[in-house]
Amino acid sequence: MELSNQLHTDTGWEFYERTFDPQQVVTTGSNFMIGNGYLGYRGTLAEWDAEQHVACVVADTWDTAEPGRLTELCNVPNPLYFQVRVGDETLSAFAGATTDYARAMDLRCGLFSRRSTWQGRAPGAITIEEEKFASYDDIHLLAMRYRVTAQQDTEISVLTGIDGRVWSISGEHFRHTEAHTLGDAADLIAMDVVTVEEGTLIRVAEGLNITGSVPVHASVREVERRVLREMTFRLRAGDTITFEKFASVQHSNGVADSQAGALACVERARDQGFEALLAAHRQCWERMWAVSDIRIEGDLESQLLARFNVFHNIIHTPSHARLPVGARGLSCQVYQGAAFWDQETFNLPMYLYTQPELARHLLEYRYDTLDGARRKAERLGYSGAFYAWTSGKTGDELFPDFFFTDVLTGRPIRNHFNCWQIHISPDITYALWLYYDATGDWDFIERCGAEIAFEIARFIGSRVHLRVDLDRYELIRLLGPDEYHENVDNNAYTLYLSHFAVDRALVLYEQMQQRAPEQLRALRARIGLTDEELSYWRDILHRLYLPQPDADTGLIEQFDGFFGLEDTTPAELRQRLIDPGEYWGWPNGVAVHAQVLKQADLLQLFALLDDFSPAVMRANYEYYEPRTEHGSSLSPSVHALIATKAGLQDEAWRYFMEAATIDLYSRSKKVMSGGSFLGGIHTAACGGIWQVIVRGFAGFEIHDGALHFAPHLPARWQQFSFPLAFRDNHLEVTIDAGGVTVSAAAANQAAVPVVVGQQQLDVTPGSTETLFA
Amino acid sequence: MELSNQLHTDTGWEFYERTFDPQQVVTTGSNFMIGNGYLGYRGTLAEWDAEQHVACVVADTWDTAEPGRLTELCNVPNPLYFQVRVGDETLSAFAGATTDYARAMDLRCGLFSRRSTWQGRAPGAITIEEEKFASYDDIHLLAMRYRVTAQQDTEISVLTGIDGRVWSISGEHFRHTEAHTLGDAADLIAMDVVTVEEGTLIRVAEGLNITGSVPVHASVREVERRVLREMTFRLRAGDTITFEKFASVQHSNGVADSQAGALACVERARDQGFEALLAAHRQCWERMWAVSDIRIEGDLESQLLARFNVFHNIIHTPSHARLPVGARGLSCQVYQGAAFWDQETFNLPMYLYTQPELARHLLEYRYDTLDGARRKAERLGYSGAFYAWTSGKTGDELFPDFFFTDVLTGRPIRNHFNCWQIHISPDITYALWLYYDATGDWDFIERCGAEIAFEIARFIGSRVHLRVDLDRYELIRLLGPDEYHENVDNNAYTLYLSHFAVDRALVLYEQMQQRAPEQLRALRARIGLTDEELSYWRDILHRLYLPQPDADTGLIEQFDGFFGLEDTTPAELRQRLIDPGEYWGWPNGVAVHAQVLKQADLLQLFALLDDFSPAVMRANYEYYEPRTEHGSSLSPSVHALIATKAGLQDEAWRYFMEAATIDLYSRSKKVMSGGSFLGGIHTAACGGIWQVIVRGFAGFEIHDGALHFAPHLPARWQQFSFPLAFRDNHLEVTIDAGGVTVSAAAANQAAVPVVVGQQQLDVTPGSTETLFA
Repeated sequence: MELSNQLHTDTGWEFYERTFDPQQVVTTGSNFMIGNGYLGYRGTLAEWDAEQHVACVVADTWDTAEPGRLTELCNVPNPLYFQVRVGDETLSAFAGATTDYARAMDLRCGLFSRRSTWQGRAPGAITIEEEKFASYDDIHLLAMRYRVTAQQDTEISVLTGIDGRVWSISGEHFRHTEAHTLGDAADLIAMDVVTVEEGTLIRVAEGLNITGSVPVHASVREVERRVLREMTFRLRAGDTITFEKFASVQHSNGVADSQAGALACVERARDQGFEALLAAHRQCWERMWAVSDIRIEGDLESQLLARFNVFHNIIHTPSHARLPVGARGLSCQVYQGAAFWDQETFNLPMYLYTQPELARHLLEYRYDTLDGARRKAERLGYSGAFYAWTSGKTGDELFPDFFFTDVLTGRPIRNHFNCWQIHISPDITYALWLYYDATGDWDFIERCGAEIAFEIARFIGSRVHLRVDLDRYELIRLLGPDEYHENVDNNAYTLYLSHFAVDRALVLYEQMQQRAPEQLRALRARIGLTDEELSYWRDILHRLYLPQPDADTGLIEQFDGFFGLEDTTPAELRQRLIDPGEYWGWPNGVAVHAQVLKQADLLQLFALLDDFSPAVMRANYEYYEPRTEHGSSLSPSVHALIATKAGLQDEAWRYFMEAATIDLYSRSKKVMSGGSFLGGIHTAACGGIWQVIVRGFAGFEIHDGALHFAPHLPARWQQFSFPLAFRDNHLEVTIDAGGVTVSAAAANQAAVPVVVGQQQLDVTPGSTETLFA
Repeated sequence: MELSNQLHTDTGWEFYERTFDPQQVVTTGSNFMIGNGYLGYRGTLAEWDAEQHVACVVADTWDTAEPGRLTELCNVPNPLYFQVRVGDETLSAFAGATTDYARAMDLRCGLFSRRSTWQGRAPGAITIEEEKFASYDDIHLLAMRYRVTAQQDTEISVLTGIDGRVWSISGEHFRHTEAHTLGDAADLIAMDVVTVEEGTLIRVAEGLNITGSVPVHASVREVERRVLREMTFRLRAGDTITFEKFASVQHSNGVADSQAGALACVERARDQGFEALLAAHRQCWERMWAVSDIRIEGDLESQLLARFNVFHNIIHTPSHARLPVGARGLSCQVYQGAAFWDQETFNLPMYLYTQPELARHLLEYRYDTLDGARRKAERLGYSGAFYAWTSGKTGDELFPDFFFTDVLTGRPIRNHFNCWQIHISPDITYALWLYYDATGDWDFIERCGAEIAFEIARFIGSRVHLRVDLDRYELIRLLGPDEYHENVDNNAYTLYLSHFAVDRALVLYEQMQQRAPEQLRALRARIGLTDEELSYWRDILHRLYLPQPDADTGLIEQFDGFFGLEDTTPAELRQRLIDPGEYWGWPNGVAVHAQVLKQADLLQLFALLDDFSPAVMRANYEYYEPRTEHGSSLSPSVHALIATKAGLQDEAWRYFMEAATIDLYSRSKKVMSGGSFLGGIHTAACGGIWQVIVRGFAGFEIHDGALHFAPHLPARWQQFSFPLAFRDNHLEVTIDAGGVTVSAAAANQAAVPVVVGQQQLDVTPGSTETLFA
């Protein structure tokens, strides 16, 4: 079927384009990308280079090119570079005539493919077929198959190798670049680069298998930061040459000997060949889809969108190590390949019930960076763990004091994401608790979770202020999820999450007393936790200000004084812009003194905590929604989720479609904002889509160890189903107009209690039960 | 002697100009103005009108022309309007030839005079002599003598009357204007105007005595909002006509029948004539100078400057009613004729020891506006009295949320003077305490002072936050005197003043317990003061955070994090301005993220509280002074005062001269800032000069009822002397190189203890004592 944005899908497992749109080089490069959590390789054509935003972004390669520039992941030299020349012409999508063009992404196994027939000035067209994947079987491996078919007798030359002219947003990250010819047969090429800050050695190695023809001439040369094989082939009409390129990217943060490792990887790959490697990779995806795939009947577009978003949440999440998932994942360097609160609130929940070990990885990453959070707290005059707004390797704050630029004056803007947006810390307790609730993983609590929770409670203890005259603790000078309003007091979202975080710290303390008193004693000693501090937390729990819904209207004020701001609309404010690239928020953007939100704090709160009635959710939805500008890609999926819970199905569908298509339909409004490039895949929206479907449309929640469903089947869908992993039990859930059908895997350990409305059933191993809605 | 800015003085009692500079119409109009605390009449020429910023600003006539415009005092119709015509030409400083020009101000009796000889196209010059004063004998009276002398036979016509075309900064304040011909002889004219907001009826009435000639034709007519007498005179060479104009301005906020009152006043004045009225007025000034004059020997310029500043502090301070002294006094409408903290910290201290009843008036005004302060506190979520940053009739906040305009974008700026600059309240307790200390006026404490102090302590109690983990109260989100840094925490100035205010509230509470237990009981009941609240204040006193001088450097950080801001200079920041009219502060001005101050909080603190050693004052002076831009006219006098106390005499002299000449030498940098007109007399600087001389150069302080002097005679001065009133005793203090000579009036009630260094003497009534420094 035809989708929007010149895209098509036939099965809901793949999408493809048949028209090449040079205006969309940035967004299609993200949408067609491949990746495996270790590296992301943008969905660009093999003939392209930095100018078309080719990039191979590699996890755990953070570098600061020079003081004052942003720390970010490295784009490494491109080992899949491939140029074809006919005479003095270079095959290109931008010159000559291209026909029979298609670019496709097979989500089932993360396989990029592309085909085009090119006619230059010389007679005789050339047909190119390109396929590539980032292996899940060997995360260091990129494999490409590049076929050239001549339609007339012709001589072509091929330039392929490693292109070190990388696109880098925040400076030159390599203090040293060196090319080598290597391997047992001296027919591998490699490029070693060393990062500026940490001296990380990254090797990119490349090997080639050629079938179908033998070059009449071949050499290797270095030119302009490239190491290139140059080969000439004489082809007869109908001849096809197949190039199988195998590349390995390894670095000294991940492996002991990245140089030898990369060579060995490439040599193994050459031995196995593209098809065998793809088969092994495909098996990995089969395992992942078995626990993750959402199947939708009745709307092929929804089916494709669900898979696209789940796919992207997966490929940007490191599964091989305790590393974060970035706000743009591995799709580009934007947002520094670093963890934001998105990780815990948007990306992670899907893993709780699909691949809980990935959720654990993300939380262990937060444990590994606890010292960074402690340093940040101390630097700003607080105690405990104040997690970085932008968190990389160490957990030290990567977000710069001056991020946006005032496009009207050229002056840098001192945004306060890094110091006032404190909800990042309680958000982590929230995710930690979700994980514990979903998995019952007590070992994690003992090793990591309790300490994180205690240090976050401690931070909150140092961040609250007591208004003695009002007999309440307050949180002053905040920046909530609605980032257009910095410097606000008693932001409801932050208060409720902080309350939750202190509460769970105390719950975990009690559980540690029961289950692991020795470990608790040791932990108390190590972090200096005292009984006075625990009493203090209890006092905060009792006296922390929690703004209540208004008795008449049900509204909760987003922060003190919000309802007193100018009551206007996003559309009206847009009229006031002097420059369309202006930042709407701090310090003097159009939304600062208005009741216009970037995203809705209250809806975000409802998305996390179950403390509010549908009526309250609805009242607040109806108040805040028309005032929300959705300047954040996090906003639409939360609107969809809360609209569902509030019984606003049309709204839910509208925002589901909006959230699901942000990237695929290139709908992001803000490739540039406040002077900064903000392109790439919006991974939080991807994780959000899983939540809209499973938590929203299926109404899935866990209460007291039982799985609850409150289904709201979208009108266009006949049914949808998805797997759920819950405490080592595997279930398949299917929702249709009739109700909720739950199948339990035969291998399950225990019966799983399932609740729909007033009905409750225990689904025993191997059985299938249907509960009617 | 010749001064700067084309000015001269001969005796130190007057200044004059002999060159007319059309570029300085705004500033000379302020410098040559007359006034009497009830009205201010700008020092413009009688032939001028609104275009030359002629204005008669009248106290207690606040009006808001329309919603959203600033509330301000009215400029009333100008009753001294006077035009002379020869043929079809109008005598003008801007056309024709003017010779023999002089404009002078006699400070001894507040008499404006002006002379010029004008030659138009017709043969024969006309000489004009103009004198006017705002009577202190009858505050509603303005008197002018206007003489015209013909140098050849000529016919002139005269247009004089009331000019209702007023200059108004914030809109049209009169909803109704009506002209009348009135009086017993039907030869008075009047203009009645009614204000928009309150319907205040203001009558301006005018009468005329003419000697030296009789008009050949006379009529009265209304034209373009003017009521004008039109008269024609035939003059022979050498003839002089003398016009004595008497005008009265009365309004319904001040007198029961402003219409009858104004007529009666004018008729009385016509009966008495200009000379007699001037004599009565001169006697008033003699009495005021007797208690206020600072006499300086050795430097005539200093002498003139001292008198100019003392004179202006006096004429802008209402002596007739409990009304505030405005930041630009009665010199124009700028700053709304309203009280700022300047009133208590800059203007008032001079009165404590010269005319203590005026200091009491100002504090009684604060008592009268206590309800406004209570309303402001309540509106912002606090208790007690949060005084208006800009305080007019009721004490409700007059400062708008959006004051400055961003000249780069045209957007209004949300400055926070009105909500974060909380030190206004403790500043009032400070002044109240100074007054009580200087006068011992217990009656005032009982009637007003205790209640003000309690409500301010109560406000502080609702404004502090307890950091439980640090065991201290903090003040969060402040704007200190250094207004370039809004939104700061733990501003040292505000903390110390708040501590002082809570302390004095408790002291006054104890004194009330001792001296007026019944009144205390009634007051407690009336304002609902409880024992718990008093305990809470004591707790604040013990645990309020007071930043201490660094043990090594002696430095006190202006606010949390100040020393971490960019360390640069005002000169460097000036280079970064995109537009010279840019505001340097909030939200994104050049000083916001830099260690560059508008005025120095720490020096201001030292100027008020005696808690710091000379070494600490010196260390902080040397740190902060190079970083101070002096964007406030309050800044230089405080620098002079603290430089003196810190033993930096050259600096003290430099800043004394700077502060003393802000207006007279037209040195104010900011006639426009952030898009607002900010001209007029800087009354705080005027009050500051008295403090520099008496508190600085004479080192005058009161401790335990004794008068201390620590003199620092400026190098250019041989000696200086000044009167001091102290608890009904009158002293004359003379400082010279030898020491301090104190003469006590024979009528004094008691001996006054005087301390200089280690010496202490009681100066008995009628005696003179010299203490050697």
